[in-house]
Amino acid sequence: MSSSSVAHPFASAQPHAVPAADLIARFSAIVGEKYALTDVNDQKPYLIEWRDLYEGVTPVVLRPGTTAEVAEILKLASETGTTIVPQGGNTGLVGAQVPDQSGSEIVLSLGRLNRIRHVDPAGDAITVEAGVILDNIHTAADAVDRLFPLTLGAQGSCTIGGNLASNAGGTAVIAYGNARDLVLGLEVVLPTGEVIDGLRSLRKDNAGYDMKHLFLGSEGTLGVITAAVLKLFPKPRAKEVAVVGVETPAAALELLALAKAQAGSQLTAFEIMPRRLVEFSIAHIPGMRDPLTTPQPWYLLVEISVGTSEEAARAIMEAILEQGFEAGLVIDATLAASLKQRDDFWKLRHEMSGVQKMEGGSIKHDVSLPVALVPAFLERAIPAAESLIPNCRPVPFGHLGDGNIHFNITQPIGADKATFLARWEEMNAVVHAIVAEMGGSIAAEHGVGRLKRDLLPGVRSGPEMALMRRLKAMLDPKGILNPGRVL
Amino acid sequence: MSSSSVAHPFASAQPHAVPAADLIARFSAIVGEKYALTDVNDQKPYLIEWRDLYEGVTPVVLRPGTTAEVAEILKLASETGTTIVPQGGNTGLVGAQVPDQSGSEIVLSLGRLNRIRHVDPAGDAITVEAGVILDNIHTAADAVDRLFPLTLGAQGSCTIGGNLASNAGGTAVIAYGNARDLVLGLEVVLPTGEVIDGLRSLRKDNAGYDMKHLFLGSEGTLGVITAAVLKLFPKPRAKEVAVVGVETPAAALELLALAKAQAGSQLTAFEIMPRRLVEFSIAHIPGMRDPLTTPQPWYLLVEISVGTSEEAARAIMEAILEQGFEAGLVIDATLAASLKQRDDFWKLRHEMSGVQKMEGGSIKHDVSLPVALVPAFLERAIPAAESLIPNCRPVPFGHLGDGNIHFNITQPIGADKATFLARWEEMNAVVHAIVAEMGGSIAAEHGVGRLKRDLLPGVRSGPEMALMRRLKAMLDPKGILNPGRVL
Repeated sequence: MSSSSVAHPFASAQPHAVPAADLIARFSAIVGEKYALTDVNDQKPYLIEWRDLYEGVTPVVLRPGTTAEVAEILKLASETGTTIVPQGGNTGLVGAQVPDQSGSEIVLSLGRLNRIRHVDPAGDAITVEAGVILDNIHTAADAVDRLFPLTLGAQGSCTIGGNLASNAGGTAVIAYGNARDLVLGLEVVLPTGEVIDGLRSLRKDNAGYDMKHLFLGSEGTLGVITAAVLKLFPKPRAKEVAVVGVETPAAALELLALAKAQAGSQLTAFEIMPRRLVEFSIAHIPGMRDPLTTPQPWYLLVEISVGTSEEAARAIMEAILEQGFEAGLVIDATLAASLKQRDDFWKLRHEMSGVQKMEGGSIKHDVSLPVALVPAFLERAIPAAESLIPNCRPVPFGHLGDGNIHFNITQPIGADKATFLARWEEMNAVVHAIVAEMGGSIAAEHGVGRLKRDLLPGVRSGPEMALMRRLKAMLDPKGILNPGRVL
Repeated sequence: MSSSSVAHPFASAQPHAVPAADLIARFSAIVGEKYALTDVNDQKPYLIEWRDLYEGVTPVVLRPGTTAEVAEILKLASETGTTIVPQGGNTGLVGAQVPDQSGSEIVLSLGRLNRIRHVDPAGDAITVEAGVILDNIHTAADAVDRLFPLTLGAQGSCTIGGNLASNAGGTAVIAYGNARDLVLGLEVVLPTGEVIDGLRSLRKDNAGYDMKHLFLGSEGTLGVITAAVLKLFPKPRAKEVAVVGVETPAAALELLALAKAQAGSQLTAFEIMPRRLVEFSIAHIPGMRDPLTTPQPWYLLVEISVGTSEEAARAIMEAILEQGFEAGLVIDATLAASLKQRDDFWKLRHEMSGVQKMEGGSIKHDVSLPVALVPAFLERAIPAAESLIPNCRPVPFGHLGDGNIHFNITQPIGADKATFLARWEEMNAVVHAIVAEMGGSIAAEHGVGRLKRDLLPGVRSGPEMALMRRLKAMLDPKGILNPGRVL
């Protein structure tokens, strides 16, 4: 590969022209007319990102039914220099999966590859196609008394292909890892149409290079994931959930260490949220009650999951809280007295984004820090945000156990939403500068897509960026697969 | 990259000439004469693999003291087409880390990069250089009340760089994963000398492609790992170890499911061994006693580790064994009554390789199967081996929880060792054919190196092999880094 193609991997391919009608017809013939959507009304669900940050147009939405059809589509695209934008459940948050405004990008929807091919409880594995909705994998695992742990807000509509392409995180990462950690084997179609069939269900396999991680988290820019073998886990027999009030994030971090020492990987959630978000929830969620008797500066949602008994789960949680009280870390805490109350606690957490909408515009950041630095980060970023926009309302919340904070800032009361949101990038610059200085990531679990593409070179070294571009140029020499995303 | 270079990535570089004296001098100048070993006696420890399968010669052993020196060495090697063989603790088992007989391969020993750069208990992370001996990482983690779980026989002399380059497995994989799963960040020097500094300690980071997995498990063929940020875990407060007698591997597999359901990831070992190996141990290990009152066909070593109390650990183990007895899976079992006895149980497991030596020659296989297929594999492979070499003594043992079986075959009593070992490849062919047919791996945890290089194309598809070669050719265009290993 020439050094110039390293410097400008898509120079030869950009900009892509709007495909001619006969070319569209050739693509459509691969999937059949019924599954080639050209009517704008049929296309609509594939063109708009749910946060309304991105809306695009496309000449055709292709809905292949087999891996072979996906391969044919990509082969034709590489031969003709046609841009392909892969899409799963269209729940992404960074603009990776929706076409741009040029009208040159064909949408490749994996939704019809929705078969669960094989369930292997004895081997704790499940083989699924890319278009299977996450919730359906949970159901299939549950049916054989197993757990597939990937848990996130969009699980009712997101598909596993998208989850893997974006290396999704969610609330169970502290115990089970990110999406990439849940994969045993992967089937991928390269931009040039070759099928890499790595659908192995082995726990140990050092026969050659492990290439699946190249595609996991690459946001559909290096290949199209068509199927995967996923890890299953024993289904916890009992859970204990508590809401805990603490004075500071530093106290929360100390409690985290206590909890991990007691529970190890039975600590299945350790989420943090500020008082302000609890107030938002009480104000906007019908029937939502203050979880603790008196208001606390910060709230933690702590979950313990065990394979034995309710008693064992409760004993571990009580030991954690007891030590937390003794150490002066826990001000107040309440254990879920019923399944209903446990669900209410989780609802409080899951509605965090929803209730922010009710309070007006929000400028959002999906950042991560070395876990130990989260308190120091919040001590710097909150005042920095407040001094940039007086009376703005920072509502940082998220996965303390992973160092992943959704550093969101709600508009000042009564302020003009548009005026506030107009300062999005200005606020990003302030927050991301602190993150970078502390060795954190500006794209923790939502990815880069188009939203953060221009920020990436600022947080990755020259040699790292060069290697990413060389990988892209090697796998996608024509630059036809999701160009302008990530790189 | 041209398609011909894909087909023959090293065509331009192979065979490498023996480096001239002035070139050796240039390499030596980078590290300083003191650390450029040219005396054969000084070189010896770097030239012989401990199983005596490989012995090579080298013009010089280079012992750099910094990442910058490693980068200079590789840059010069790429410029001059000089072959470099990276080496850690020289405990590898597949010939990846020792030079060949040509005298053209320079050994790059990472042993002097042995600093523990940073220990972060609050963030459960530790930053180490490639040459740190695995046991020293255990000690450093222990000093801050944490666990680094990677556990294997060679841990007293192997180095973390080699562990990561070979994606080492070991006995703790069932609970903590393989070596690659324990890495947060990686520092790698590319064959052309660029340094990829990815020493981040983030639990969630989707800022661009995850490139560390490209190098993890690549056996020093794609880059030289110089440092890593590793995950630490809570140190278990209590352990319970049991030896369990079962009738068949199928019963063992059913018990594994029971154990995982009860203990989840607190099940920290589930090892299987046949009666014959117990007899070898009793015969050859002074003071080793039969662990159960009556001989059993198969033995399991089961370990539970918890963060709470001895009572909790014992309660989980007793629940597992109780259910196992009720289900008719467990014939006999004994719990370690003391730390001494626990160590004896583990000694039984750790001496498996040693006691085989005492019985003569062994033909070895490091294979893995989908976990559920291990019993079926053993039912086929044991008679197949016995019919190929009458009276040979199969002693398959290993990590049932990972589907990883060391399918070793000890020579017939009184047979000639050399005659027996001469049939190594013949036996491999029989065993590996069954493995391949069942979707297993012929290189589970020891890697490919030179030992299995010629077998790899037989177990990986054309497109997979082609992609591996393209990655190799892209990262190492001159083919100077560990050529003839893996690919």
